[in-house]
Amino acid sequence: MDPLNGNDWLQTVRFNEQGLVAVIAQDVNTKEVLMMAWMNAQSLEETVRSGQAIYWSRSRGKRWHKGEESGHFQNVKEVRLDCDGDTILLMVEQVGGIACHTGAPNCFFQPLQQKDGVSVWGNQHGENNASS
Amino acid sequence: MDPLNGNDWLQTVRFNEQGLVAVIAQDVNTKEVLMMAWMNAQSLEETVRSGQAIYWSRSRGKRWHKGEESGHFQNVKEVRLDCDGDTILLMVEQVGGIACHTGAPNCFFQPLQQKDGVSVWGNQHGENNASS
Repeated sequence: MDPLNGNDWLQTVRFNEQGLVAVIAQDVNTKEVLMMAWMNAQSLEETVRSGQAIYWSRSRGKRWHKGEESGHFQNVKEVRLDCDGDTILLMVEQVGGIACHTGAPNCFFQPLQQKDGVSVWGNQHGENNASS
Repeated sequence: MDPLNGNDWLQTVRFNEQGLVAVIAQDVNTKEVLMMAWMNAQSLEETVRSGQAIYWSRSRGKRWHKGEESGHFQNVKEVRLDCDGDTILLMVEQVGGIACHTGAPNCFFQPLQQKDGVSVWGNQHGENNASS
């Protein structure tokens, strides 16, 4: 079944040549940017219908119901489309407070830092783990 | 000159088959997600060196110093890399409080709404304009 059938709002979305749209998940409470992933028309339709984030895993080439293994589901509170229709912002309630597959609260735990005059990526998640 | 030369941190970034990495700009003060765009190695290196967001415009196929025409520059306060190295989060100070080329504060001004039982994209920017 073509998810575009009868769904005008889906036809407004500009999916790329792989049929995917970029999706940013932001925590509706803390405003943290949690992760960036992709959806196809079917998973976007299912996300809106079910109220939970369902992505398209490019690495595994299949539907990815976020949290299906970890229990860290994302309950979708708002769906927003950007000006040119090719990026979606999901405002979510992050179950368990953990969005990243590494166990970090969000995926962006590597800040660019200066060490001895050289730029290096830090690892706040690793540092937190090491000190605990 | 190859920007990767002598820049180990740039070699950690996983640029896609077009040589681009996805970049999310977030307002460091309000925490609003402002926009999503792309950088190549050269523009990412220049962003870090200059402290202002410099993207790669896919539609125009060229370097895009954000704000070069509008004056709405983005002063970069922090650069963060995600877990698998293919998305960057920029924490920025948005000059003029306007990130979107439409004049909206951010690009995500179209929330998915229910009208008469049908999903439609709203336009908060347009609505604001219409009522002013």
